[in-house]
Amino acid sequence: MKLFMFSNVYQKHNQMSMNPIKISVAKGDGIGPEIMDAVISIFDAAQVPLSYEYIDMGKKFYEAGFSTGMTDEAKASVESNGILFKGPMETPKGKGVKSINVTARKTWSTFANRRHFKSLNGVETVFSKAGIPIDITIVRENIEGTYGGIEHMLTQDVALCRRFITRPGSTQVHRFAFEMAKREGFHKVTCAHKANIMKLTDGLFLETFYEVAKEYPEIEANDMIVDDLAMKLVAKPQQFEIVVLTNLQGDIMSDLCAGLVGGLGFAPSANVGEHISIFEAVHGTAPDITGKNIANPTALLLSGFMMLRYLGFMEHANLIENSLLYTLENGVHTGDFGDRSTPSLSTTDFAKAIISNLGKSPKENAARDTKATSAGFHRPIAPSEQKMMLGNQVKEESKIVGVDLFIESTLTAAELAPMIQKHLVGEQKLIMISNRGTQVWPTGSVFTECVDQYRARIEVPSSTNLEEMFGLSSRVSADLMVSTAEILRKFGEKAGYSLAQGQ
Amino acid sequence: MKLFMFSNVYQKHNQMSMNPIKISVAKGDGIGPEIMDAVISIFDAAQVPLSYEYIDMGKKFYEAGFSTGMTDEAKASVESNGILFKGPMETPKGKGVKSINVTARKTWSTFANRRHFKSLNGVETVFSKAGIPIDITIVRENIEGTYGGIEHMLTQDVALCRRFITRPGSTQVHRFAFEMAKREGFHKVTCAHKANIMKLTDGLFLETFYEVAKEYPEIEANDMIVDDLAMKLVAKPQQFEIVVLTNLQGDIMSDLCAGLVGGLGFAPSANVGEHISIFEAVHGTAPDITGKNIANPTALLLSGFMMLRYLGFMEHANLIENSLLYTLENGVHTGDFGDRSTPSLSTTDFAKAIISNLGKSPKENAARDTKATSAGFHRPIAPSEQKMMLGNQVKEESKIVGVDLFIESTLTAAELAPMIQKHLVGEQKLIMISNRGTQVWPTGSVFTECVDQYRARIEVPSSTNLEEMFGLSSRVSADLMVSTAEILRKFGEKAGYSLAQGQ
Repeated sequence: MKLFMFSNVYQKHNQMSMNPIKISVAKGDGIGPEIMDAVISIFDAAQVPLSYEYIDMGKKFYEAGFSTGMTDEAKASVESNGILFKGPMETPKGKGVKSINVTARKTWSTFANRRHFKSLNGVETVFSKAGIPIDITIVRENIEGTYGGIEHMLTQDVALCRRFITRPGSTQVHRFAFEMAKREGFHKVTCAHKANIMKLTDGLFLETFYEVAKEYPEIEANDMIVDDLAMKLVAKPQQFEIVVLTNLQGDIMSDLCAGLVGGLGFAPSANVGEHISIFEAVHGTAPDITGKNIANPTALLLSGFMMLRYLGFMEHANLIENSLLYTLENGVHTGDFGDRSTPSLSTTDFAKAIISNLGKSPKENAARDTKATSAGFHRPIAPSEQKMMLGNQVKEESKIVGVDLFIESTLTAAELAPMIQKHLVGEQKLIMISNRGTQVWPTGSVFTECVDQYRARIEVPSSTNLEEMFGLSSRVSADLMVSTAEILRKFGEKAGYSLAQGQ
Repeated sequence: MKLFMFSNVYQKHNQMSMNPIKISVAKGDGIGPEIMDAVISIFDAAQVPLSYEYIDMGKKFYEAGFSTGMTDEAKASVESNGILFKGPMETPKGKGVKSINVTARKTWSTFANRRHFKSLNGVETVFSKAGIPIDITIVRENIEGTYGGIEHMLTQDVALCRRFITRPGSTQVHRFAFEMAKREGFHKVTCAHKANIMKLTDGLFLETFYEVAKEYPEIEANDMIVDDLAMKLVAKPQQFEIVVLTNLQGDIMSDLCAGLVGGLGFAPSANVGEHISIFEAVHGTAPDITGKNIANPTALLLSGFMMLRYLGFMEHANLIENSLLYTLENGVHTGDFGDRSTPSLSTTDFAKAIISNLGKSPKENAARDTKATSAGFHRPIAPSEQKMMLGNQVKEESKIVGVDLFIESTLTAAELAPMIQKHLVGEQKLIMISNRGTQVWPTGSVFTECVDQYRARIEVPSSTNLEEMFGLSSRVSADLMVSTAEILRKFGEKAGYSLAQGQ
């Protein structure tokens, strides 16, 4: 009967996709080759219709002089196949070398990081001991926020990092989350954010979430402040299915969830883009156990399940996932987890155990029963130029109404004000001065502690233009160190800037 | 014997402080008055040498027209006493009304938020079920980061939030953490950050951490990436004593820790400043149970312990804390927690139970045995003007070497470049154009997805000046919508700006 189920699955898939799909595979550094070979042996045994193009990426290619850690052929393979399955990689420490993982995500615009955190039988955690099952998917925006890395020192005391959130970038990741929910049978998507503090940036992320949610009335949509989410994830994680977040908040919450299920060894990762998607293990390369055939391939295998489902091989994914869960439920383990009183298996024997259990299912917490959809994988055609993404909102007429000047000074705000005012002409008016976001002029509190960096807001009641505002910046800078001129705009009747605390 | 211990404590403290210290007390909204009365009844029974000045803050004072939610007399009381003990408060929703909690923290420069998370016997959590005791103190920088609320819409699609980290602000909160560790008998302080991504801002936070740590060789100092911290907090929370973080990261980690110990009802909070400190319950006002004498006063009482220790009343704090822990250990509870099969006590009876147990100690997890120090509380003298805080590093000579122009455009980078270049004069050179932090000109990837907001970096090999850079900004803005001019500086030989991904 079990054998029948297995061949049945195989036959169905064989019919669905006669020609195997070709993907690029980078085995990675350290334990990478061992765990990749183990995973592919399982895929082969389950007759997953994939073919593998092995490519050159990782530490030794940095050392051979490739500044991105990959050969031109490797890059071409990924860009042609659209799918990269990769083991862990090491980025050599040193000047001018960028993390291979970050470079890959940025270069290929993988806008969504998807991670699936599920309790595994046999992997003991605080939550398994308490009898609380975890099954959470985190979708993290992967390009924006502070990860643009746009930083400036405004004075020797004051560092600035720009945090950008965009309408098309947010819409793109929300749509991915809802499409995934629909395709894979989820019921609820939660947006976590800090829009109560970051009203324009996280406000935009939240606004676009509910815009996209309207297109998916069958899926429940709700939102939550990110600190509240952190509290609820450690107290009642059962209430979440899919959570979508901005970049850094999603990074932190992902690793929190990894902790819930036993760490990075049990936490898969997918970086999904319009054209190229990367499925990878995010744990380290473990040089101390490299070559010993004892590494745990589970995280890479779990990443593989996300890849199979992404490609439309739902039943192959379910088949192998249930075999893994059955195997773990029966106490089979590698040396890094499980019951220490029972012998641990080698990497290859662990893979063989999973292969021998293909067709079996665990008693509890079986794989989500995702059905194959008619929508298989369509290999995208590479773009010929960079794509310009635009929000679909009504474009309001904009006008220039002033400028925020950021000024280095150790003077008091009261001393600073006339030095700015003397350069104002016409209707230009100094509205307020703030320090670290708190208004200190024309009114303020003596208790406010200042640093050597003020913001002065100049407004023009009717409207003005850019040349006038940069002209003013130039005049003020004759006397004062102006590090930034930030134009104030209105879009329709709505001010495109926040007020200072106390303004 | 127990009675003797109790009177002994009282006698010692009575000698130490003949005159009680006067503090301002705001009972708050909803259940605030009930829980505040309960806490003060316990303080009185333990003969804590405090006197209370009750002040007017909260919802009804907003409604009476005070835009900050407090009367002038209330403000004067807090600014004169230097200590505010407050119950939960409600900020009415509506335009132009700022959160009373945020306003208080900002106005009075309470630069450090301290929260203590400790497992309580009788409060069941996932971690108590797993037998893992929690005892973590989080110190969060309370002014900077994205909480300055400095936001601008650069286009209708692109929102920007400025994240500021300063040298004196970081130094101040690190020093607070180490001083607290020294004073209260902690052994280790951990700095959590994201300096691997935000190299200038979080890099500054980390650099100042180790600078301050050098002054406290008896206390262990280490650091950790914040996402790794999140993972470890839910997997092995026992390894942490004090963790110091930037504002938003600290906010998220604080609520994570609140979840570890049972939620906001068991999570106290202190906002500490140079002149004024606020000790408060951060849970809600619970209007549904207001006036029923069933609210749980524990979070406010725990906040009170931090206040007593801050004031130097170590032994009173230990006495009451041990009584609370003994009471909880014996299964006494209000209606919101504990064994539902045993009757719950009213707010006043819960307080009476704690009072009747003064002098007793729990079998396990007693209060940290903090000794009274000679350094009692010194009421600070109010400043006469805003204080300018400066970092103590060697001031390097700075020079202006270029400008980053942020430009709204739906053109391609290749089309944009000549439109900027035609305005360049002398040595000015267009170095690169990036979109969402990734370089798209002179080289880039066709896979990069763009939004209608570019950054163009113009550098001048030798050096330039502000007037020239704002002059250039003005010329470029004749053809293009330039939303920001950000000056590039070098401090000594060090560039005060990051490179783009791919640059």
